[in-house]
Amino acid sequence: MILATLHDGTRDGRLVLVSPAYDRFAAAPLPTLQQAIEDWPAFVEAAAGVSDFPQLLDPASLTAPLPRAWQWLDGSVFPTHADLMQIALGHDPIESDRPLMYQGMSDRFYGPTDDVPLPSEDDGIDFEGEFGVIVDHVPMGTSADDALKHIKLIVQINDWSLRAIAPVEMKTGFGWVQAKPACSMAPFAVTPEVLGSAWQDGRVGLDLHIEWNGKAFGHANGRAMQFGFHELVAHAALTRDLVAGTIIGSGTVSNVNYAEVGSSCISEVRAIEMIADGKAKTGFMRFGDKVRMEARATSGAAPFGAIDQQVVAISSKKS
Amino acid sequence: MILATLHDGTRDGRLVLVSPAYDRFAAAPLPTLQQAIEDWPAFVEAAAGVSDFPQLLDPASLTAPLPRAWQWLDGSVFPTHADLMQIALGHDPIESDRPLMYQGMSDRFYGPTDDVPLPSEDDGIDFEGEFGVIVDHVPMGTSADDALKHIKLIVQINDWSLRAIAPVEMKTGFGWVQAKPACSMAPFAVTPEVLGSAWQDGRVGLDLHIEWNGKAFGHANGRAMQFGFHELVAHAALTRDLVAGTIIGSGTVSNVNYAEVGSSCISEVRAIEMIADGKAKTGFMRFGDKVRMEARATSGAAPFGAIDQQVVAISSKKS
Repeated sequence: MILATLHDGTRDGRLVLVSPAYDRFAAAPLPTLQQAIEDWPAFVEAAAGVSDFPQLLDPASLTAPLPRAWQWLDGSVFPTHADLMQIALGHDPIESDRPLMYQGMSDRFYGPTDDVPLPSEDDGIDFEGEFGVIVDHVPMGTSADDALKHIKLIVQINDWSLRAIAPVEMKTGFGWVQAKPACSMAPFAVTPEVLGSAWQDGRVGLDLHIEWNGKAFGHANGRAMQFGFHELVAHAALTRDLVAGTIIGSGTVSNVNYAEVGSSCISEVRAIEMIADGKAKTGFMRFGDKVRMEARATSGAAPFGAIDQQVVAISSKKS
Repeated sequence: MILATLHDGTRDGRLVLVSPAYDRFAAAPLPTLQQAIEDWPAFVEAAAGVSDFPQLLDPASLTAPLPRAWQWLDGSVFPTHADLMQIALGHDPIESDRPLMYQGMSDRFYGPTDDVPLPSEDDGIDFEGEFGVIVDHVPMGTSADDALKHIKLIVQINDWSLRAIAPVEMKTGFGWVQAKPACSMAPFAVTPEVLGSAWQDGRVGLDLHIEWNGKAFGHANGRAMQFGFHELVAHAALTRDLVAGTIIGSGTVSNVNYAEVGSSCISEVRAIEMIADGKAKTGFMRFGDKVRMEARATSGAAPFGAIDQQVVAISSKKS
C-alpha cells in the first residue's frame, strides 16, 4: 500500500491511496494518516478493497504523508556517520553499546517541495538524508522481535540540522532543540511489502540518492544500520508506550565506502576533508540552495518519491 | 480564568471553566484545551461571558488540563538544581550561558491522580516538581519581551525521571529518551492574572510543597529561575515556530537555602547527603510510593491544585 497526503489547508491534510504506478489516486477510507494508524487493521482491510484510482496524481499537490506526529524519535545508528561526526563536531567519542536516539520536533514535517525557512546562514545549515518508520501503538516493554510487527509504514526524511549550534547543545547532554528545526518528508509512505526484498532485518536496503544544487552528492545504502528499526522501536518503548503514529528515524545514512558512494550530509564531507587535508573546505548551505533526495532501487524504482526543496531566509518565507 | 479537563474516554478530554472558588464548573466555549489555545482571543472573549458555574466539581473527574500536547520542551534553569545534579549524576559541570532545555515526550500527560506505571524499581524512579507555561503560536525568532505575551496559561508538572538511565543517555549528548517517561500535570491551568503578584518577571513566585509518602519533602519557591519563562520561550523559538499548545517547563524547582526549604526531587537530597557524608543514603521510589505536589501561596491558596499519585509496576497498571 502506498499512501500520500494532499494539501487541503488543514494541518493534517487529506490522506489518499496511491496507485502501484504512482500516477493516480483514490480517496482513503479514513481522512488522515494519523487516524489510519490509530485504527490500522480496519484501515488496511478497507483499503484492500480499493482497486480503482480515479484521479490523476499531481506531485505538487502533496505534503508530507504524516504532516505532524505526536512523537518523533530519531536514532543515529550508522557507525560511519558517528565516526565522521565526531571529527566534524569535535566532540569526544560517544561510548555506547545502545542505539543513540533523541526526541525531536514532531508538530510539523515539511512537505517534499516546501521552502524551508531558517533564520541565518551562519548557523551551518545542513541536510541529513535518512529513513524512518511509522508504528502503531507499541506497549511499554515491547521486545525487538515483537516491535517488527508494529512497523506499519516506511518513509524517507530530511532531518534539517544547524551545525554551528549542534555541538553547543550536545555538550550540555540535553540533546538538541535549536540545532534541530522541523524535518521534511518525501511524499509517499509505503508498507513494507512495497519495498519487497529491500526491506530486510528491519533495514531499508536502498541507495539514498542526494543532489545538492543539482550536483550528485551521495548514494549511500540504508542497510548499513548497526541496529534495525525494530531494535530502535524496542529501545524507545522501554519506559513509555509509543503512541500510534510515532515516527522513528535511522539517523543519517552513511556507508564505510564513502569515497565511492558519497555522503548524506555536508558535515560528513567536511570531516572527510579534515581527515585528508587537515581542514574542511566545503561550506554549508546558503539561502536559495536546493537539495534533492530520492531512494532508488537498482531497477530505478523510487518508492518514497523525492524531496526536492530549497532553503530560504525566514523573512522570505512563503506565508 | 481557571481551566480543567474532565476524563471523558477521549485522549483530549473535555475542557471546562472552573469557578474562582474551585468548587464548580461550566462547559467551556470550545471542547478541548488544544482547540482553545489555537483560537485563544475568541476563546477568552467567549469565556468572559460565563459567570454561572452550574455543576459541582469532583476532583476525581479531572485529568491533565492538556492531556497531550504537540510539543513539550523542558528547561532546567534553577542553578541550585544544576549544581546538585552534577554531584548526583557524577557528570562534569555544564558550561552554558544559555538556558538548558530538552525536548520530551508530549503525547501523554498523566492526570493528577493517575497511577504511573514503570518497568523497574532498579531504574532509580524519581519525581521532579516544576512549573510550566502553555503558549499560543509563537513565530520563529520571537524576542523574550514579545514572548511574554504568548504565555497564556501556567501549569504545575511532575517530570518523572529515571536516574539510573539519565547519566548514560546524557553522556551521549543526545538528551533523554528512556530516562524521561511521561510527565504528570496538576488539575488546573490558570491564566497569569489568577496568580496575581505571584506571577512576576515570567516566574511563578509560589512555594511548591512536596510530600513523599505523606512526609514533607520540600517547599522551594519558583521565583529562583535564572531565566524567566519568556526567555525560555524565546530560546525555544530561535529556529522553529512554536505550535500553539507548546508546553515549556522550568525544570526542577530548587532554592539555594535547601537546608531550610528542602528539595523537589530525590536526586538533590542524595547529592546533599553526598556533600555532607560522602555518600547518598536516601533511596529512590519503590512501587506503591506516593508523591503529592501542590504550589501554595502564603494565604494557603493552591491555584494549580494538587498532583497526588502513586508509582506502580507496569504489570499492575490499571487498564
